[in-house]
Amino acid sequence: MKKALAIDVGGTKIYNTIINENGEIISEIEKRHTPKTFEEIEKIFKDIIQKYENEVDVIAFATCGAVNNSNNGILGSTGNIAEGYPKMNFTSLSKKRVFVENDANAAAWAEHIIGASKGMPYSIMITLGTGVGGGIILDNKLYKGKNGAAGEMHFKMRTDKHRKCTCGAWDCFEIYASGTGLKLTAEEMLNNKDVTTYDVIDGWQKGDAKMTAIFKKWENDILEGLIGLANLFDPDVIVLSGSMAEFVDTEYLTEKVNSEIVTTPTRIVKAQAGNYSGMIGAALLALGVKN
Amino acid sequence: MKKALAIDVGGTKIYNTIINENGEIISEIEKRHTPKTFEEIEKIFKDIIQKYENEVDVIAFATCGAVNNSNNGILGSTGNIAEGYPKMNFTSLSKKRVFVENDANAAAWAEHIIGASKGMPYSIMITLGTGVGGGIILDNKLYKGKNGAAGEMHFKMRTDKHRKCTCGAWDCFEIYASGTGLKLTAEEMLNNKDVTTYDVIDGWQKGDAKMTAIFKKWENDILEGLIGLANLFDPDVIVLSGSMAEFVDTEYLTEKVNSEIVTTPTRIVKAQAGNYSGMIGAALLALGVKN
Repeated sequence: MKKALAIDVGGTKIYNTIINENGEIISEIEKRHTPKTFEEIEKIFKDIIQKYENEVDVIAFATCGAVNNSNNGILGSTGNIAEGYPKMNFTSLSKKRVFVENDANAAAWAEHIIGASKGMPYSIMITLGTGVGGGIILDNKLYKGKNGAAGEMHFKMRTDKHRKCTCGAWDCFEIYASGTGLKLTAEEMLNNKDVTTYDVIDGWQKGDAKMTAIFKKWENDILEGLIGLANLFDPDVIVLSGSMAEFVDTEYLTEKVNSEIVTTPTRIVKAQAGNYSGMIGAALLALGVKN
Repeated sequence: MKKALAIDVGGTKIYNTIINENGEIISEIEKRHTPKTFEEIEKIFKDIIQKYENEVDVIAFATCGAVNNSNNGILGSTGNIAEGYPKMNFTSLSKKRVFVENDANAAAWAEHIIGASKGMPYSIMITLGTGVGGGIILDNKLYKGKNGAAGEMHFKMRTDKHRKCTCGAWDCFEIYASGTGLKLTAEEMLNNKDVTTYDVIDGWQKGDAKMTAIFKKWENDILEGLIGLANLFDPDVIVLSGSMAEFVDTEYLTEKVNSEIVTTPTRIVKAQAGNYSGMIGAALLALGVKN
C-alpha cells in the first residue's frame, strides 16, 4: 500500500507523520513549534524529509495559505507565519514527489474520503477555531477556483463597517463565527474587553443567562452564514470542524437552515476525521485517493 | 446546423424563437402574456411547439424556478406564476427532445459561450432586475449542486432581521441588490413610501445629492455581495446583467472588490449576450454547445 509523509504547517506548530492510502496514521506524530524565520522553517522541512523520504511514495504538505492549482506553491501572502514563507520552493525539498494543499482544503478532503461527508459528492467544510477555514468539494472534486484560492469564508455579515476582520476587510463571516468572533460578541454585549471565549463557553454550560445569550448570538451568526452557503451551493452536507465546532447544536442548525433556504434540504454535521484531518487529507490527495 | 425552439417562461411574459448552434436568433421573437392558470400556460406551450417542432432538433425551455439535474422538471415551488406550474410535464409536450433549465442559469451559459464571460472557465452571472437571479459556471460547466437548485443569491447582508426578502427569509442579497432593493433603500433613507426606483435613477442622473447617496448605498450593497462571492469562488469574472445592471459602475466595482478580497484578482463586467440571453443559453445547453 502506498504511503505519504504528511507535514502540517501552521502559524504556531508543525506536525508530521506517515499516512497510508486508507487515511490511516501509521507512525508516531511529531510536533515542533513553528520558528520565526524562513530559514529555520526550511531547515525543519529538510530534517523531516531527510529522515522519512525513503519510507514513502510522496511528500504531502497541508499548509496555511492559499495553494496554487499546480499544488506546488503558495499564492500571495499568508498571515501568522514568517514573511518569506509563501516563496518556499516545496518541490526542491525532496527527491520524491512533493504535493502541497491548503490545510482547510486538505481537511475537507479527509472528511470527504473517510469522515462526515464520505460518499457525498457536494460538501462544504468549515473549520471554526481561532479563525475560520473553508474547503469546498463539488462533484467529488476539491473546488479551487481559477487560481486555487477559492473557499475563503470571507463574505459579509453586515455592511456598516462594524468589525474589522483579520483579512483587513470589514464584517466577514470569519470575524463573527470564529472563537475570536465569540469573544468580540461577548465584549460588545457585556461592554467588557476582558471577557474570554472560555468565560462564555463555561458560563453557557453552567446555564448563565447572559453567557447563554452571547453564545446563542454567536451560533445564530454561524446559522446566517450557513443559509447563504446552502443557497449558493445546494450541498449534500456542511461539515463543521475545529475546536469551536464541538459546542454548536448541529440538529438545531440543520432544522433552521432547511426552514430558510430556497434550495433543497441539506444537513449540518460535525467533522469525523479527527484532529489530524489536514495531514490525512493532504496525504489522500497526494496519493490520488478519490471517492 | 442544428436548431432549437427556445421558450422563455417568466411570471409576466412568455417568449419564443428559434436559435442555432452559434447562438443566433434565426426567426421572429414571439411574445405573449403569461396566463394565470396551469391549463392556459400548457395550451400556449402546445401551440408554440406544434407550430415549430418540425423545424428544430430540440425544444429548449428557459424557465423561472429551480430545474432538476435531469433538465426535465422544476424543483419545489415557484413564486409569481400559476400554482400548478412546477408540476408541468415538459417532456410530454413534444415528440422532439425537450430540455429545461432555469432562466438565470441559461443566461449565464449564454454569457459563457457568446457573451461577457466567453473563454473563461470560472464565472458568476448576476441578474439585477425586479429581483436577483444567479448562474454559476465552474470549470466550464454549469454548476447546479446536488439537486439542481444552486446559484440562488440569497445570502445575508445583515443579521438583525431588517428587511424581509421575497423568499420569506430576512435580509438576503436579493432584497438589497435588486431594483426592489433600491426602492426600499430610498424609502428608508427618505422616510417616504412613495419614492420609486425611477425617481432615484432619474435624480442620480441629474446630480441630486440625496438620490446620489441612495444610489451609492445600493451600489455599495452590490459591492459587499460581490466581495463574498469572489472570496468563495475565486472566479475569472462576475457578469452583471438585467435592467438595473446598466447603471452600476463596473470599473469602480472591480477596483473595490480587488482591494478587499483575499483570493486572486477578478473582474466585474456587464453582460453582452443581450435581452434574450435566457433563450440563447437554454438553446445552447440543449444543443450541447460547450466552450
